[in-house]
Amino acid sequence: MSYSPSALELYYAPNSCALATHIVLEEAGAPYAAVRIDLGKAQQRSPEYLRLNPKGRVPALVTDRGVLTETPAMLVFVAQCFPAAELAPMDDVFTFAQIQAFNSYLCSTLHVNHAHRMRGYRWVDADDAHSIAAMRRKVPESVGACFDLIERDLLKGPWVMGDRYTICDAYLFTVAQWLEPDGVDPGRIPRVVEHRQRVSERAAVQRALAAERALTT
Amino acid sequence: MSYSPSALELYYAPNSCALATHIVLEEAGAPYAAVRIDLGKAQQRSPEYLRLNPKGRVPALVTDRGVLTETPAMLVFVAQCFPAAELAPMDDVFTFAQIQAFNSYLCSTLHVNHAHRMRGYRWVDADDAHSIAAMRRKVPESVGACFDLIERDLLKGPWVMGDRYTICDAYLFTVAQWLEPDGVDPGRIPRVVEHRQRVSERAAVQRALAAERALTT
Repeated sequence: MSYSPSALELYYAPNSCALATHIVLEEAGAPYAAVRIDLGKAQQRSPEYLRLNPKGRVPALVTDRGVLTETPAMLVFVAQCFPAAELAPMDDVFTFAQIQAFNSYLCSTLHVNHAHRMRGYRWVDADDAHSIAAMRRKVPESVGACFDLIERDLLKGPWVMGDRYTICDAYLFTVAQWLEPDGVDPGRIPRVVEHRQRVSERAAVQRALAAERALTT
Repeated sequence: MSYSPSALELYYAPNSCALATHIVLEEAGAPYAAVRIDLGKAQQRSPEYLRLNPKGRVPALVTDRGVLTETPAMLVFVAQCFPAAELAPMDDVFTFAQIQAFNSYLCSTLHVNHAHRMRGYRWVDADDAHSIAAMRRKVPESVGACFDLIERDLLKGPWVMGDRYTICDAYLFTVAQWLEPDGVDPGRIPRVVEHRQRVSERAAVQRALAAERALTT
């Protein structure tokens, strides 16, 4: 059953993984509005936002059937709603599983390792300065190891899945924004850096970035 | 394009998240063999296993088209390969996205919080006893918060997605095995505990558990 949502709202914060869905909405030509959540003001924990998304995090995608969260789910949802954009081969079970595995690795391993730089309080007491600092120090190594695996084993080239641009490319581009702030030497992963450049040149990506920048200032 | 793999091999370790895929293979009536990896002997980092899965972790699913990893990807793959078992409604885009969001939450938040009890060395130096212990102490709270969210907002009942058993149920059952060892009081999440009991009564689940136990001894 095909399904075309009439209007979507993406709740996002700049520099967050919401950028992946933002890009894919642009790639798909989807009708949507972007709504900025200010993490600095803890808007993600406001009663209004928690009614929308009880997880208290971004991103969230409001649809006419309900609210969706979790980047891998949202990316496939957009790809399925707008099949003309050909952002995920839903008819090829194995290739689709590889796409899912890639996205799952980014959310459950790479993004999590990255989060230990700024959000260590999720895993130790917030006033434990020693442990918070210890986690932060490990990030270049733990995030770097993820990018090494992507460089060596996962990124087929020129796009993540080979000849065709997919939702994986928007997601890898998004987490690759964090390379330098996470202290990972870009010189060790030239193919990932080249991929980041390639994705940055797409018109849809430039529109998503410009929208987030415009709404930020 | 439908696709029926002729034979599958599931590489797993007992008490790991591989159980979710093991259960779903049983539910689907899939032709497969289970191959035990002994984490105690670090078999997941042996050269042979790393050739199969360079991530050096379980689970991995060997198919005649290649190797798959990451539980959310593997669960959907099995559901798609064996549609007669009706384990995921691939034709309902929004419901499928909710299934994906649920599975993504388990892998990227609940499982990760759980991993801080035994695998803290992923996020701080292995010889930093203070930080390793600090992470371990936080697990009852961080995993407990995930189960609170599931209890209150995500588990529709009687199954995760409501009236129909899906891949989400096998996955929730699997992570709910860790409740007591993670120090989460089952009394605070009666619906999750009731769900765990309900899933445990399924014949496919009992077959998967028996197979893992038999191969363990």
